[in-house]
Parts: sequence; structure tokens; C-alpha cells
Amino acid sequence: MTVISEMVPASHGRAYRMQAGQVAVIANLHGNQVVDAWALSETDPLEFSSMDHTRSVNSSIYLEKGMKVVSNRRRPMMTLLDDSALLCHDTLLCPCNAEIYEQLGCDGYHRSCSDNFHEALAAKERQLPFTPASLNLFMNVPVHADGSLERHAPASKAGDYVALRAEMDLLLVLSACPQDITVINGDDRTPRNIAIRIAGEYPEALQ
Amino acid sequence: MTVISEMVPASHGRAYRMQAGQVAVIANLHGNQVVDAWALSETDPLEFSSMDHTRSVNSSIYLEKGMKVVSNRRRPMMTLLDDSALLCHDTLLCPCNAEIYEQLGCDGYHRSCSDNFHEALAAKERQLPFTPASLNLFMNVPVHADGSLERHAPASKAGDYVALRAEMDLLLVLSACPQDITVINGDDRTPRNIAIRIAGEYPEALQ
Repeated sequence: MTVISEMVPASHGRAYRMQAGQVAVIANLHGNQVVDAWALSETDPLEFSSMDHTRSVNSSIYLEKGMKVVSNRRRPMMTLLDDSALLCHDTLLCPCNAEIYEQLGCDGYHRSCSDNFHEALAAKERQLPFTPASLNLFMNVPVHADGSLERHAPASKAGDYVALRAEMDLLLVLSACPQDITVINGDDRTPRNIAIRIAGEYPEALQ
Repeated sequence: MTVISEMVPASHGRAYRMQAGQVAVIANLHGNQVVDAWALSETDPLEFSSMDHTRSVNSSIYLEKGMKVVSNRRRPMMTLLDDSALLCHDTLLCPCNAEIYEQLGCDGYHRSCSDNFHEALAAKERQLPFTPASLNLFMNVPVHADGSLERHAPASKAGDYVALRAEMDLLLVLSACPQDITVINGDDRTPRNIAIRIAGEYPEALQ
């Protein structure tokens, strides 16, 4: 049974309650869009998805199909159940924040994944006094042998999707990244909306 | 003028107040020892060294000589001024915590870098409700082209050192990592002490 089917508007964030076993399908409608993602435990107010523990558990700098996202308490939170484009999703780079846009020369306020995270939490009456590192779905960050990294446009095409299964009761937070200065959201630098469907069984969420 | 010269005992943590411009020299007395490190701003209680922002600013998965550690507000906190062995210091993996040792099969309490962090903060009347990702000095984590990573013994030899210059007034937190199950602290799996000297000018801290 599909419990949620909606859009996350371009450059905005949303949070969704998921029960253990439910699956979220996040569809990259236009192919270009990076989605910053976090999970928060529903039972421990200070347990959240941890990229440093996730890299440790997977012994990998990327998140790929079959790998798990774990918490700062090393409990499994989500499994990347399916991935239509078999991407190497980024775990390395920070969610964008106000300071990044200041440093990029923006005048005045610019939306950011960090602000989207806190806004989405507040809408669910949750809060955290900091911004955890994000899982950056569809974000294309190749790493060279010398450790240097590059920021490329996503390798996904319109309609590509990932399916994340909740391994505990959690709050899933998504931000359709507002970055429009670098090419991280595509060569035309135009943030776009994404689709999310949450269902009790995996194939249903694809329909 | 040297202001501090002491040992961090094996498997324990310590915190040190540093003024902007002071330099900490951390010496790997036995060559084998990983040192988990964090910095906290002295003026903002929620500003701390951020590995995800540090990788972003340096466009690198490692910290190497000349690179900066930045905060979650993207302000420079420390510069890796010198490094006798020119290592690729790890920014990827989590500080060890109680859950890791449970998962490794330990019975009862095992010291951890996360607990060392919070103990060291408490001794300076500071606290954070979570454990930020750590800069893992001397930690040897090669990454392969497919994104998989390995945990090797440190490539440093006895007496190798790093010099970190504070770029703001901060609290430097160090943990001599207690990991004695994997080879991350050397093939003999024996955590050892480290030396720290803090001085107002860089060469003085080497004496």
C-alpha cells in the first residue's frame, strides 16, 4: 500500500515518517538533481545517519546497491535496495549551507540543504542542534588515486530512481539540493523537483 | 615559548586550549599510534571541526601538509603546517565507540575514541551531545579505484610528528586510539602514548 506519493519541490526539503520495512522510492524526474538525505531514529533523539560510520561498515567511500546506511550507534537504518542506474552515491561532501553560498559570492539569502534539513525537521516537531553529514544521492564525486576529488554533473538520466528500505522506525529527510552555481545539479545549473513514493512493499512503491 | 609539553597516555584523551597562531606538535613516539583529533571553537559552542566540510574545502579525501581543517561554519580552524612523514591522514572513518567494540565481540567496557572525546571535553567544562567525525592523524586508510577502503597499520616510524597551527582560539581534543583488535594501531595491536607540545612559534614546539 502506497502511503505517500508526492513531490519535493526544487530547492526545498521534506521529512517523512517511515516504519521499519517500508520502502521509499526517490525518482530523479529530470535526471540532474542531487538529493541530500538523512535518517533520524524515531526512538533516540540523538541517533542519526552517520556517513563516517556508514563508510566504516561498508568499507567503501560510496553508497552502492545493497549497502546499508548506519547510525552513529552503528545500527542499520536504511538499505539501498535498488538503484536503476547503479551509481556510486556520494558520502564524502557536506550538505551545502549558508556559509558556502557566502563564499561563492552570493548576495543575501540562498536556500541550502542544511537549512532545508532543519526546516523539514521542524515541520515534524523534531530538532537537532547541528547538521549531520548527508548521504548525497545521485551526486557524482569521482576520487582520484592521489585522494583529490572532483564535482561532476550527475550521471543519472530522467526517471532514474533509488529505493531505500527503512531498517528501523525513522524520519527520512530529503533535500532537493538548491546548488545553482556549480554543476553538481547538472550543466544547466537549474535545481529541479524530485518524486518520492513510500510503500509497505518494494515493488508497489515503483507504480 | 612552550606552553604545554606532556604525554597523552595510551588509550586516553586530553583537551588543550590553543590561541590563534599557536602550534601543536604531536609526536608519534612509537610510530604505531593513530591519534583521533577534533577542534572546537572557543567562541561558538556548536562550531567544531567538520570532516565533510574539510574534504569539500580541500577537494581531497585526505589531510596532507598545507591543507586546512575547517569548521561546520567553513571557517579555518587549523592548518597542517608540517608533517615529517608526509602522510595521507584519514578523514573518512569514524572515531571508535562502544558499539564498535561490542560488534567486535568485546565483553564489558572497552575504552574508545568517542568516550575519550567526551571525557576530555568534560575536563574542560565543555560538552557536545554527539561525537563529530574525527581527523585521524597517522591513520592509514588507502582507497581503491572502486571506492573500497582498507585499514592498514600506520606508515609512520617512531618519532614522526605533525604540526597543527590554530587558526582561531580553540580547544584541541586528542585521543590516543585504544583500538587493540584490528591492526590500525600497528601489527602488534598495542596502543601507546603520544607526545604533545604547544608553543607560540612553530620551530619552538619541536624542541
